[in-house]
Amino acid sequence: MTSPFERRIAACRDRLAETDADLIVCFPSPNLTYLTGFEESPSERHLLLFVPRSGDPALVAPAMYEAQLSELPVADLQRRLWTDADDPLAHAADVLEGYALGANDPDPATVLVDDRLWATFVQDLRDLLPNAEFGLASRVLEPLRIRKDDVELAALRRAGAIADRVSLAIRERGDDLLGTTESELAAEIDRLLAAEGGSEPAFETIVAAGPNGARPHHHSGSREIEAGDPVVLDFGAFVDAELGGGTGRYPGDQTRTIVVGEPPAAYERVHEVVSAAQQAAIDAVEPGVTAGAVDRAARRVIDEAGYGDAFVHRTGHGVGLEVHEPPYIVDGNDRELEPGMVFSVEPGIYLEDEFGVRIEDLVAVTADGAERLNGTPRGWETGD
Amino acid sequence: MTSPFERRIAACRDRLAETDADLIVCFPSPNLTYLTGFEESPSERHLLLFVPRSGDPALVAPAMYEAQLSELPVADLQRRLWTDADDPLAHAADVLEGYALGANDPDPATVLVDDRLWATFVQDLRDLLPNAEFGLASRVLEPLRIRKDDVELAALRRAGAIADRVSLAIRERGDDLLGTTESELAAEIDRLLAAEGGSEPAFETIVAAGPNGARPHHHSGSREIEAGDPVVLDFGAFVDAELGGGTGRYPGDQTRTIVVGEPPAAYERVHEVVSAAQQAAIDAVEPGVTAGAVDRAARRVIDEAGYGDAFVHRTGHGVGLEVHEPPYIVDGNDRELEPGMVFSVEPGIYLEDEFGVRIEDLVAVTADGAERLNGTPRGWETGD
Repeated sequence: MTSPFERRIAACRDRLAETDADLIVCFPSPNLTYLTGFEESPSERHLLLFVPRSGDPALVAPAMYEAQLSELPVADLQRRLWTDADDPLAHAADVLEGYALGANDPDPATVLVDDRLWATFVQDLRDLLPNAEFGLASRVLEPLRIRKDDVELAALRRAGAIADRVSLAIRERGDDLLGTTESELAAEIDRLLAAEGGSEPAFETIVAAGPNGARPHHHSGSREIEAGDPVVLDFGAFVDAELGGGTGRYPGDQTRTIVVGEPPAAYERVHEVVSAAQQAAIDAVEPGVTAGAVDRAARRVIDEAGYGDAFVHRTGHGVGLEVHEPPYIVDGNDRELEPGMVFSVEPGIYLEDEFGVRIEDLVAVTADGAERLNGTPRGWETGD
Repeated sequence: MTSPFERRIAACRDRLAETDADLIVCFPSPNLTYLTGFEESPSERHLLLFVPRSGDPALVAPAMYEAQLSELPVADLQRRLWTDADDPLAHAADVLEGYALGANDPDPATVLVDDRLWATFVQDLRDLLPNAEFGLASRVLEPLRIRKDDVELAALRRAGAIADRVSLAIRERGDDLLGTTESELAAEIDRLLAAEGGSEPAFETIVAAGPNGARPHHHSGSREIEAGDPVVLDFGAFVDAELGGGTGRYPGDQTRTIVVGEPPAAYERVHEVVSAAQQAAIDAVEPGVTAGAVDRAARRVIDEAGYGDAFVHRTGHGVGLEVHEPPYIVDGNDRELEPGMVFSVEPGIYLEDEFGVRIEDLVAVTADGAERLNGTPRGWETGD
């Protein structure tokens, strides 16, 4: 009985062989989690997973992770633990020597490094393998990760439900939101996400009130929510997938733009346009349609309403172990949708110095259309 | 009147000239924040700062950041904004062409990339500059960033005071902590950090109860705190420095290990040893002493008590715009301490399947010793 992670490593090796590459090197990132069930933040400490086309995979890691690493459900994984007094690169060199890359091949070895590997570690690997050709691990891993299996879909549905419950709870507070600062409300949302079963926020919770909403990636600050302020609320929490050991966390990601009291004059019309654009994009989703066509479906509605210049970002992004991952829902992306892909649909209109409106749901591509993973009202009204 | 960021960019150019390098390329990271006052998370979108030895610095960035970027207090910064329908690499190529790197020099250009630049963007730059030699930006930026100025020190002191107030508030809850899960308490700590004026947690708050404390980097989970559980609490929040425009956030980072009720038999002795080790390390801090000597001062105390094998990490790490940055307080590090360096002193003892104890404060190197930035009791007792 192999673990999900052993199956993924086997699939990774198959694709290394198919693409004539010799080795993948991962770093704390969703790729590492996908292959081993181990999750950690990137740091300046050397923590490198080596998956060769032939030979046992190896993990060079700080000794402080010994307990976590001993539990990983990957039977043949070599574990090379180093303490702060050791040279971690000596361990890495030893692992690489064992693989004898390119020994039976006149061509230089092809090493695919984690797309998020920090330049400092890329430099280390280039020093250790001066004759290798370097590429990116996504070449092998992206096609595996982009289609979610049933366990991953179940986790994404649970994450959607958690975001929905918190969204409703905030909306129902109505007048009680007045006078709360963006930072306070963001912290309260994070608390509610945890109380509803989220393991941690999937990204920095955005609370953007009034003119701050015109910045799509505003950092919540000291502005108090006032009556009539459109407030962009963009948040979600990770939930753990049931992977039979090892870790795999999948995010919620939902946006609503609400108002306590009477909104500004132009607001209702803008909100209607964004809502219609979002629905048009979701209606366009089905297998065989391109990601770009979904973007264009949203953009057409906003263009025709005269707000095309105020929709300054793509319509959406895939989600999975990463909050932003393929498929990207952007004009020009010819990638055809397949069942099991999951992504956000989040058009927005941003009016500098006035307000912003964004409405976002996650959707999963099904055999013949789209399944929405968020179900709360998309209107702006607050209160019970 | 130049801004702090203009002064830093000028210092960066001076060091480029001194080290015979031609260009620094930064990515969303503390280096980018240090040089421009712009803070953002790394993402798959191209957002690259170019600082050449001669010529105007340039920022290639997604158009959605236009408003934030227009406010950056850097007068000569070229801003090259791209939309999701553009090719950001065409903008980067155009910027690089303007610099005419190596045009007056027979040697290949030397390009120093952000140490945290993702491999995917390193690859892009190598494709754009196939003849350049690549190195790391820390060569130029680390010596600038490692000594904190008065504004930075003031922010670090405020961050320390915030962590202290939250630490005391949690400790005083005593019996009320029983039955709370690690995740709930972590979320509550994050809420308190925000309420005390923190802008956001500086790292994932660690609440590790009972045997979970034996994992230095435990992720808070569903375990409830029980009477007699040693509970490791490791947290801090960022605060904004007063930089006259632009952003610069500096972290708190404090650890206490507390117990509600009667601790396990071995606990009090272990706690005493860790506390003594921490004091010995802080006593060792003064200009001219090496970072390694501070580590050894803590390690000696723990070794002599017979727990040497259970102290599995270095004694500390520098803090600044990064929560982990030089100087690293680790055996073998010959770097001499200088006034203005700020780092953690955080020895620990980790007993697998039993508990862990860690005690951590931040200290600043002064003209003749150390200033502690945390002042709460280091004992384990709880309640009023």
